[in-house]
Amino acid sequence: MATVPSVSNSITVRMELPARGNAVSMITTAVESSGGSVTGLDVTASGHERLRIDVTVAASSVAHGEEIVEKLRAIDGVSIGKVSDRTFLMHLGGKIEMSAKHPIRNRDDLSMIYTPGVARVCMAIAENPDDARRLTIKRNTVAVVTDGSAVLGLGNIGPKAALPVMEGKAALFKRFAGIDAWPLCLDTQDTDQIVEIVKAIAPGFAGINLEDISAPRCFEIEARLREALDIPVFHDDQHGTAIVVLASLINALRVIGKDIGRVRVVMSGAGAAGTAILKLLLAAGVEHAVVADIHGVIHPGRADVAADGAEALRWIAEHTNPEGITGTLKEAVRGADVFIGVSAPNVLDGEDVAAMAEDAVVFALANPDPEVDPAVARQTAAVVATGRSDFPNQINNVLVFPGVFRGLLDAQSRNVNTEMMLAAARALAASVQDDQLNANYIIPSVFHPDVAKTVAAAVREAAQATGSAPAHVPAGTVGITEGGDGVVPAL
Amino acid sequence: MATVPSVSNSITVRMELPARGNAVSMITTAVESSGGSVTGLDVTASGHERLRIDVTVAASSVAHGEEIVEKLRAIDGVSIGKVSDRTFLMHLGGKIEMSAKHPIRNRDDLSMIYTPGVARVCMAIAENPDDARRLTIKRNTVAVVTDGSAVLGLGNIGPKAALPVMEGKAALFKRFAGIDAWPLCLDTQDTDQIVEIVKAIAPGFAGINLEDISAPRCFEIEARLREALDIPVFHDDQHGTAIVVLASLINALRVIGKDIGRVRVVMSGAGAAGTAILKLLLAAGVEHAVVADIHGVIHPGRADVAADGAEALRWIAEHTNPEGITGTLKEAVRGADVFIGVSAPNVLDGEDVAAMAEDAVVFALANPDPEVDPAVARQTAAVVATGRSDFPNQINNVLVFPGVFRGLLDAQSRNVNTEMMLAAARALAASVQDDQLNANYIIPSVFHPDVAKTVAAAVREAAQATGSAPAHVPAGTVGITEGGDGVVPAL
Repeated sequence: MATVPSVSNSITVRMELPARGNAVSMITTAVESSGGSVTGLDVTASGHERLRIDVTVAASSVAHGEEIVEKLRAIDGVSIGKVSDRTFLMHLGGKIEMSAKHPIRNRDDLSMIYTPGVARVCMAIAENPDDARRLTIKRNTVAVVTDGSAVLGLGNIGPKAALPVMEGKAALFKRFAGIDAWPLCLDTQDTDQIVEIVKAIAPGFAGINLEDISAPRCFEIEARLREALDIPVFHDDQHGTAIVVLASLINALRVIGKDIGRVRVVMSGAGAAGTAILKLLLAAGVEHAVVADIHGVIHPGRADVAADGAEALRWIAEHTNPEGITGTLKEAVRGADVFIGVSAPNVLDGEDVAAMAEDAVVFALANPDPEVDPAVARQTAAVVATGRSDFPNQINNVLVFPGVFRGLLDAQSRNVNTEMMLAAARALAASVQDDQLNANYIIPSVFHPDVAKTVAAAVREAAQATGSAPAHVPAGTVGITEGGDGVVPAL
Repeated sequence: MATVPSVSNSITVRMELPARGNAVSMITTAVESSGGSVTGLDVTASGHERLRIDVTVAASSVAHGEEIVEKLRAIDGVSIGKVSDRTFLMHLGGKIEMSAKHPIRNRDDLSMIYTPGVARVCMAIAENPDDARRLTIKRNTVAVVTDGSAVLGLGNIGPKAALPVMEGKAALFKRFAGIDAWPLCLDTQDTDQIVEIVKAIAPGFAGINLEDISAPRCFEIEARLREALDIPVFHDDQHGTAIVVLASLINALRVIGKDIGRVRVVMSGAGAAGTAILKLLLAAGVEHAVVADIHGVIHPGRADVAADGAEALRWIAEHTNPEGITGTLKEAVRGADVFIGVSAPNVLDGEDVAAMAEDAVVFALANPDPEVDPAVARQTAAVVATGRSDFPNQINNVLVFPGVFRGLLDAQSRNVNTEMMLAAARALAASVQDDQLNANYIIPSVFHPDVAKTVAAAVREAAQATGSAPAHVPAGTVGITEGGDGVVPAL
């Protein structure tokens, strides 16, 4: 599949070249004939004979950028200087910072923010620990926790290399939901240790977002933390993905007019995301689901499903595939209404999609290369979605996790449950109005201004309805009068 | 000792009273005759017969504030509404937040800050882990870690109640040194667990500031972490205090013209701060030190010093008291040149100070009530310092920890050693010029604009000189050209 030049592969090439003649136009020609695109050209130094220019070029990959630089180097009279990278420049020194909310100008400020005044605030919390939600950062703070074992599609690259993703996640939490998130990249991949560590750091946070932790450890870590803690624990790779997939499915079925209880769903992938999607689809009313992994359709008769330690596979075998089918993924998708892939590139082709039921729905979410080329799938399927930003219907967790946590924090929820996740998915689906909905717009843009608020309100309500949060957020024991606003009403 | 009304005990009292007559003046009189001071008076509602006013009052303690409210309640015709508290208002919702450094306006921004662009940054760090210092928040980020076991003078109040102090500390790190610190309040007081947790969270931080962890666990935790980690670990209660005490002693001796190698120093207190001060004083050249605890002067003949598990006391006995004196603290201070108290209120009186050597130096640092009333001590001692902000010469860690960490981070130091701490103390002392120095100004204000920079430069230099940091901060492997600044020079 061809990829288009992108700002995320944008480079700036510094070069010197003759001031006269057609060298500058040769540069533009060289970039464009290589499939890149010139997005900026600055003269940074000039003389009678020579020019120094910085040319910014969007390439489609790192290798493509290097290829373009070599093309430029080959132009007669051009010498190449430093090549820099816009994405790296944005990451230089990190993408987030800590800020103080109040100025510290003098001893008075210091005596309230720090000693001696702070001691009274500490004692208030010591006497009533729930006041930590009023008098500290706790109420708006989320820990983004990873062990670096399954970062994006890059695999087990470790905690330091995972940090740029976790910082980015924290930046998104703030941008889309006003939440203060801080990354914790753990230098251990031991399940027991991770559980102990997250339990221990919990007092200063109102929620835990687990991120990029590999399966099957992520299941046990999450389950044990949910049991142990009185704040919600949410593994975004599982549940964020599940919520946005369910929302997308609800809307795809609105487009084609099929009923969620009757469609036959075939999934490819039984990892963390696949398992979570499956569970949420079942909770939402899907009755005919079949899951395939690299060995084909999962059913109780498979030797690896019956083996010791295969609890996760066994759970799938017991809760899916009511018709008891066997065989390959390609066989299973024949006649299916919905295909959901969270697995590997190119496991299906156009013929497989053409063999699905009429008005088929295809979600090919492997990233960056989908399970089937979406342009090919769209030739016969009614609705196609991917995880890519260069194709309609991008299924992106950013649509979900900010709003979910905003709702959990606003409700002061002690946990996160299936009802809240269903509510989030339904709210996200409903944010696409009937008169907006079509096969190329089943899911809103991540920049849609209402998405996080809508999801947050639904989650908050579900938290209260399921008894996970106080019906009314309680007032604390320490009385605080808001200051006068300068308007003097009649008494 | 009398305490003065302070903004850190400032309350705002909402009340209604008759619109006519002298009720308003009776309020001011009542506050001031109670020893409080009216710092603001707002009319917040008004009618023909009644007024509602918010009166802001500085009191000298919580009890004093309550007493003033009762005096106001007793005024004829006055009814008291809500009483609020300026310090609590500043802590509402916490004192720090997370901010993103770049706006996220559109898909282009998203594709560089998050997926897909971030993947290339991750891979660069996976290939060269040292690049984490260039491409992430690591290089400017410090963890403020506590277990809540020894918070201020409040004792073992636990992790949630400790959070307001740790947030305040983080705010001070930013205000005085531009450092991004985030608090981690641990829900465990087990030494092994704390060591494991801090080791595990280290990848995302360039330094660890341990805070308010009780002795003797703090010694073992710090020692084991220093052994295990490649970033500096600094227990501010120990070393921050030691540095500011040594700086103050250097300058007190400049004032009175005595030599650090010849003065007889008597210390009260053998806890975390006392032990760290002692070690730094010995490293700085003090040769005659005697330490007393609640059982009197520490010497090898004491049964508790010889007992199992008393390694810390035994270390003191073996490294101090060359004359082998025994007896009480009061006996030991007779004829001493310097008294340093980090222990308990009122262990000395004016007669004890009068019995010290001529031109005595008294640092009475117990907070809020010093070892001896500083006003009484000053009648005979040449130089007196306390930890209080309402007396000259406040010995305050805020003078030290921001600059120390700034220097450590700028140097990319792998540890913190005695040479760096001596350098910090000498730089802090030298920041008071000869023509500024006197008995009431041995130490600069925490708001002195050069203090943190001066301390940071000294620490950075010492880190490089002792081989704890690279001689030159290394360039990374990923080339980044700074963008043009719009000025086109001649080539």
